Amino acid sequence: MILKKPALYTDLYELTMAQGYFLSNRHEQKATFDYFFRKLPFGNGYVIFAGLGDLLELIQDFRFHEDDLEYLKTQGFKTDFLDYLRHFRFSGTIHSVKEGEVVFPNEPIVRVEGTILEAQILETALLNTLNFASLIATKASRLVQVAEGKPVVDFGLRRSQGLGGLQASKSAIIGGLQGTSNVLAGKLYDISISGTMAHSWIQSFEDELTAFRTYAKYYPDSSILLVDTYSTLKSGIPNAIIVAKELEEKGHQLKAIRLDSGDLAYFARESRKMLDNAGLDYVKIAVSNQLDEHLIKSLLDQNAPIDLFGVGTKLVTAYDHPALDGVYKLSTIDGNPTLKISENVEKVTLPDAKKLVRYSNTDGTFNCDGIGLENEPDLDAIYHPYITHRSTVVSDLIAESLLHKVIEQGTVCVPIPTVKESTNYSKKRLSKLNEEHKRFENPHVYKVGLSDKLQQLKDQLIKQNK
Amino acid sequence: MILKKPALYTDLYELTMAQGYFLSNRHEQKATFDYFFRKLPFGNGYVIFAGLGDLLELIQDFRFHEDDLEYLKTQGFKTDFLDYLRHFRFSGTIHSVKEGEVVFPNEPIVRVEGTILEAQILETALLNTLNFASLIATKASRLVQVAEGKPVVDFGLRRSQGLGGLQASKSAIIGGLQGTSNVLAGKLYDISISGTMAHSWIQSFEDELTAFRTYAKYYPDSSILLVDTYSTLKSGIPNAIIVAKELEEKGHQLKAIRLDSGDLAYFARESRKMLDNAGLDYVKIAVSNQLDEHLIKSLLDQNAPIDLFGVGTKLVTAYDHPALDGVYKLSTIDGNPTLKISENVEKVTLPDAKKLVRYSNTDGTFNCDGIGLENEPDLDAIYHPYITHRSTVVSDLIAESLLHKVIEQGTVCVPIPTVKESTNYSKKRLSKLNEEHKRFENPHVYKVGLSDKLQQLKDQLIKQNK
Repeated sequence: MILKKPALYTDLYELTMAQGYFLSNRHEQKATFDYFFRKLPFGNGYVIFAGLGDLLELIQDFRFHEDDLEYLKTQGFKTDFLDYLRHFRFSGTIHSVKEGEVVFPNEPIVRVEGTILEAQILETALLNTLNFASLIATKASRLVQVAEGKPVVDFGLRRSQGLGGLQASKSAIIGGLQGTSNVLAGKLYDISISGTMAHSWIQSFEDELTAFRTYAKYYPDSSILLVDTYSTLKSGIPNAIIVAKELEEKGHQLKAIRLDSGDLAYFARESRKMLDNAGLDYVKIAVSNQLDEHLIKSLLDQNAPIDLFGVGTKLVTAYDHPALDGVYKLSTIDGNPTLKISENVEKVTLPDAKKLVRYSNTDGTFNCDGIGLENEPDLDAIYHPYITHRSTVVSDLIAESLLHKVIEQGTVCVPIPTVKESTNYSKKRLSKLNEEHKRFENPHVYKVGLSDKLQQLKDQLIKQNK
Repeated sequence: MILKKPALYTDLYELTMAQGYFLSNRHEQKATFDYFFRKLPFGNGYVIFAGLGDLLELIQDFRFHEDDLEYLKTQGFKTDFLDYLRHFRFSGTIHSVKEGEVVFPNEPIVRVEGTILEAQILETALLNTLNFASLIATKASRLVQVAEGKPVVDFGLRRSQGLGGLQASKSAIIGGLQGTSNVLAGKLYDISISGTMAHSWIQSFEDELTAFRTYAKYYPDSSILLVDTYSTLKSGIPNAIIVAKELEEKGHQLKAIRLDSGDLAYFARESRKMLDNAGLDYVKIAVSNQLDEHLIKSLLDQNAPIDLFGVGTKLVTAYDHPALDGVYKLSTIDGNPTLKISENVEKVTLPDAKKLVRYSNTDGTFNCDGIGLENEPDLDAIYHPYITHRSTVVSDLIAESLLHKVIEQGTVCVPIPTVKESTNYSKKRLSKLNEEHKRFENPHVYKVGLSDKLQQLKDQLIKQNK
């Protein structure tokens, strides 16, 4: 695909460090990095992990082309290193949770193992890909949670952050939205596209009725008429009713009207009455205009008779929290566990190659997650990361390993997940998360604990560092 | 370039409306659209207009390929229309202010004239391009304004919104930043790239000193050592001093140290003392870690001895206002002026093809801007858009037309602006904006008025609509 991140889509320091490793002949040291985030966005109780499909494609195609090398030469990179980059392919192994998985802070969501050079050089592109996709999938999931089963559709492309609009539309579907206005996303990811009409369509006709009639002529079963160009109740709805009746005569049905300004609860109610009085109870009401999950909740709390929500800016930019703080940290080097210490206890990283295990109750709902050393036996209990006297026995729960091998020695070894698969998976997984963790405000914190062995290793390494 | 928005990077409704115009044989009606925004972001006093270069390239290459048409066919588009799209090229005329221009709310920044079909079909891509680029250029400009001449560099790629990171880095330079970590942006736009090192570099060595030494060996004049991996004052700075002294012996100079955690004002001051005491007053201090213009201002207000600021997330996502509200509105149809009325007086659009004139004082500073009808004579006075008894005489000021023809009958008729040109232009123009409009908090509102004739036309059309 033309819109793919090339190898130079990275921070300069990834390449200067790579050259440093290469020139000091340290580049083949084995290393492990973890991708994880620290803070839940939007005050939400969980994150929907997305971006894995894009990441796998990116790594599959990751190479430096001649013009890239020429450019790097102008930036002072050495010929020997550029020769190395010319033949560079990622040859490491990656484990990841599935795209669409429900994940929580500090969990090692993706684990990259390889040489220090190859694992390091992926950092920026990996973070850029996973942080944004997971952020938007999570925002979309929030919107769907409050919409009480009514469809929510992405109309955000015009306000999305440049080309980020493509990933925004894709991730929004993974998070549960029913469609997008983004045609390219529809083509590339086989997702449902939809749209209505702009005010300019109506303005370009001699009058609103002719504008509606013309549109309905060409889209007799899929027209969503925008009714607020002149006056919603005095002109828009009456004209929409005329057109709906004309469509009925020809055996068609007006699909919906759209409200895009004013008090949406009031106009939805009045419009509903007028449509119903005209025998058009099947004509749906769509609304848009700076919607977010709070406004949708408010509209539904008021029982506004709305059937479809179009969301834009607030979704595709994740307006109230426009970045996920995901990081990529070294956990082993040369076969030895390592961690990054910090003045802030919560910023100390978890050492060594790790496993991530989900523990479910017998009814299938998620109970808690545990992080342990990759090769330690099944855990009996998990411990609070900082308050170590707090623990949870997990031996009687159903354990499920969340990290799956997705790249083995440089080769993608799973089918690249389609949007449909990730969307379904996300929906399935979210259904197993208890309601208190999905609560809109102040969700209950989902328990994520460490194994005793991991806890001990961490303490030991902190002491050694001192 | 591979990272370019294709024609399908649009909202579905642009294409359904286009088909509607085509099938009803209205597609060759002449139309004019204006691009403008309504609200200044970040509480800033101005916007730096950016994205024009990208837009011109986009329009130059705008076409539907066979696979696009095949996809549209699966979405129910008609063969006749698809045949039309197959040969579609934009053949209209576009006027725009220069990239890097200082602009204000409600000003017609870009004017697109053509057939209704071709002018409408550009809407989404145009908005996506201009909104984000202008937003980030403006954010960058704010950062530069507070940094008191000290360099500010973009380190944001890992947290940028997917592929939006490319436009973010470009626009940040147009807004005045001194460099970026984004290598691809460096290659594509000929902008300065820079970087430091990650904690993982240091962790991957047996000790910090060896890590510093190795890096300095390969980058003897450009090393920026990250000093907070273990303990900034007990380990990082002392080791940096050792390495700096070793570099001196070989005739080199350590470039800088970087602080990335803790109280940056405190650590900068202590680090400065230690470096100075070691005779290393030339070693600069760079800082990063969730910086924005408010934090930079606070650090400088405290006289923290910082030489370089690395900004990331808060810049590239425009964290506190992640979208510019730019819109694209019809102003003429079939040769007649039109406007979009609204319950909200400030949302009524300005009719007809317009000119945008900047009035400067004799010392070259900007006094005010005027919006008039394209073909009316030079203005004598401009009027407040809503409070019409407020007016400003402009006949004794130096008038400058801000809208320049950039595309004539489908052909780009100006050199596509380079980042360097737009950066220089932005700097030059900003120097002519009086300080009160650049004030960090509560900037004075810059005057933008309408001509008498435009005001009258607007009033008349509002009356007609009623």
